[in-house]
Amino acid sequence: MARRGANQPSVGGYNEAVVLDQIRRAHGHSRVELADATGLSAQTVSNIVQRLLDAGIVEEAGRTSSGRGKPRTTLRLVGSSRYAVGVHLDPGLITVVVLSIDGEVVARHARATPRAQDPADTVAVLIEDIQAVLSESGIDRSRIVGLGIAAPGPIDADRGIVVDPPNLLGWDRVPLRDAIAEATGLAVVLDKDVTAAAVAEKWVAAPGGAPNFAFLYLGTGLGVGLVVGDEVVRGGSGNAGEIGHIVVDPEGPSCACGLRGCIAVTCAPLPLVEEAERRGVLEADRESDDPTRVDAALTRLVHMAEDGDERARDLLQRCTVHVARALAVVSNLLDVDRIVMGGPLWDRVGPTFTEAIPPLLDEMRVARGVHPLSIAGTALGSDVGAIGAACLILDEALTPRPTSLLVPSA
Amino acid sequence: MARRGANQPSVGGYNEAVVLDQIRRAHGHSRVELADATGLSAQTVSNIVQRLLDAGIVEEAGRTSSGRGKPRTTLRLVGSSRYAVGVHLDPGLITVVVLSIDGEVVARHARATPRAQDPADTVAVLIEDIQAVLSESGIDRSRIVGLGIAAPGPIDADRGIVVDPPNLLGWDRVPLRDAIAEATGLAVVLDKDVTAAAVAEKWVAAPGGAPNFAFLYLGTGLGVGLVVGDEVVRGGSGNAGEIGHIVVDPEGPSCACGLRGCIAVTCAPLPLVEEAERRGVLEADRESDDPTRVDAALTRLVHMAEDGDERARDLLQRCTVHVARALAVVSNLLDVDRIVMGGPLWDRVGPTFTEAIPPLLDEMRVARGVHPLSIAGTALGSDVGAIGAACLILDEALTPRPTSLLVPSA
Repeated sequence: MARRGANQPSVGGYNEAVVLDQIRRAHGHSRVELADATGLSAQTVSNIVQRLLDAGIVEEAGRTSSGRGKPRTTLRLVGSSRYAVGVHLDPGLITVVVLSIDGEVVARHARATPRAQDPADTVAVLIEDIQAVLSESGIDRSRIVGLGIAAPGPIDADRGIVVDPPNLLGWDRVPLRDAIAEATGLAVVLDKDVTAAAVAEKWVAAPGGAPNFAFLYLGTGLGVGLVVGDEVVRGGSGNAGEIGHIVVDPEGPSCACGLRGCIAVTCAPLPLVEEAERRGVLEADRESDDPTRVDAALTRLVHMAEDGDERARDLLQRCTVHVARALAVVSNLLDVDRIVMGGPLWDRVGPTFTEAIPPLLDEMRVARGVHPLSIAGTALGSDVGAIGAACLILDEALTPRPTSLLVPSA
Repeated sequence: MARRGANQPSVGGYNEAVVLDQIRRAHGHSRVELADATGLSAQTVSNIVQRLLDAGIVEEAGRTSSGRGKPRTTLRLVGSSRYAVGVHLDPGLITVVVLSIDGEVVARHARATPRAQDPADTVAVLIEDIQAVLSESGIDRSRIVGLGIAAPGPIDADRGIVVDPPNLLGWDRVPLRDAIAEATGLAVVLDKDVTAAAVAEKWVAAPGGAPNFAFLYLGTGLGVGLVVGDEVVRGGSGNAGEIGHIVVDPEGPSCACGLRGCIAVTCAPLPLVEEAERRGVLEADRESDDPTRVDAALTRLVHMAEDGDERARDLLQRCTVHVARALAVVSNLLDVDRIVMGGPLWDRVGPTFTEAIPPLLDEMRVARGVHPLSIAGTALGSDVGAIGAACLILDEALTPRPTSLLVPSA
């Protein structure tokens, strides 16, 4: 992840972030408890809290008494004090959200990604949506900390460039981060969709959860976001999480990579719909491979399965076996404690996947006799990518690091 | 990794480890430079250095002058002050080394793993070898900080148990850590062979190297040790690094897991030798699948290829394609900066792998246009597992953590 912006608030302190992070996690600590929890002196905590109160980021929430001594004033984050914008560019869907500092979506806009010949047209649509959502939200710009973008890989994280995602036709090294920063005047970060989804899970859905987990992202493409040792894994160039060429069906279709049955050519929405059409389960009446048309066909297939169509159910069951095989590779390589599933397809495939995948995967795990693996759908639904994109900014602002976006230095 | 031992030195301080780590890495820092580098006060550094000098772990190496002010005394680690024992149990080979605190192998013993029916017999051989190496080394037991074991997975890291490695017949939840601790009186840690190899690479071969790398371990089985964000990846139960069921040849032989062409049934020594026998490249005159006989047959195959036998060369080339495919899965998932290869097979397959794999892998990498990937053989040779096992102890002793094995508290 890398950032650039014309309008960055100045750098705050590491200790502020430590205190803020503690206030966020603890829900209702007093100054004394904050000093205990952070190891900072009472005076330091008191000064920091005063600055956070002055900045309106924290408020006094009430008084508690432990029976002895004088009652203590508890503190809490003011959700409406700061916001981050999250933009998710999926080849099939553009989602923009505004997220409050306490993780609530306060404004949202989604639309099918336009089938533009020129990436500049899609970028223009993104900017239009961002400005519309910001304007509709009525939030003062001074309260917007920054904007995060979740995009399909490969990306060039250092340069804020979307390189050449297989499902975004015509995109070739598009400097998306700087384009959005220039148009909006906001501090902007760019990261991969799967990474953003993992960050969302870590920040909003299950803070303090499993220290090692994989987020299976189901969109126009499939990928995984990874958290290892409670840290998000980005890799050397921000491109961690590619699983497209894991072979899940040795008898499957040929792949451009030279292998057969890679998950990218068996379980992604397009090959799944194509297979349904080849088998006559779906009518082959799509006019194009446009992701929105593919998505509509996939929805029909899921509804047929729900209505009891055996052939549609077989296809989806087969898909769960393939996905379980890919997850087994990830799980065996990283020995994760938890797998979370979500993304734009989740509202359709969720019930089938939630039922079928856990027992399949457990059979395939090398460490199954040693420790359990929990598997669940995300609580964040299809917006997880956009929420995660906003969380990239909150993560930067609220994680104790030498710099902070939130509070100007005293 | 988890530890147990009857004879553990008492717990030292976090700051000692910070200072020691800095002395180890910097080669020739003075007290003033140590204070600058660690952020500790001059007085704290001075006290710690005095304790390390008294303990004989550090010595004054000389004096440097910067031209102004008084000359400074530089400090260095005393290699002969502390040692760790490393034990590598590969199904084909048992290696025991004694490693000095500065990473030199000062004693070594290796033998073919006995084909014992009862794991207790193999454990007895391990203990015999450890005692023989320690006795031959002539090192006073008070200078031995502990003993690390590298074993094939799956392991139960918390309990120090070797669970049921596919290539160790008859092994079923063997409490190896405690057995060795009881027999030797040393503090013992148990970890997976691949993890130990990655630790060795990080500590001895390339300290300060790539923050994200994978170590391809080539032994009786194949696996990878992982380092992400400069931290060794162990996963939830110490079993990270399993790659056996990555499909690398969709037309390959069936695997017990239900797939075809998993790397465990195509590229490990036994299936490779079996394929050579099926093709008539090697005579089918092995008396058993004993790893040492398989290893000897593999050596013959490599020599034939080196002598120009086209069919032997084809088989090894095919193997490099398969290995490259597995490494592509790892590399695409984790976006590593570097891949290191080594282990018991490396002295045989090294030249072929070093030549063939980098160009194959580069073709398969999703991030190839964004950042380079370096690929190399380890400088530590076939002993990397045993050296890594000893490094597990040094890692625990020299990495700044709340506890330290090295220096009793003042």
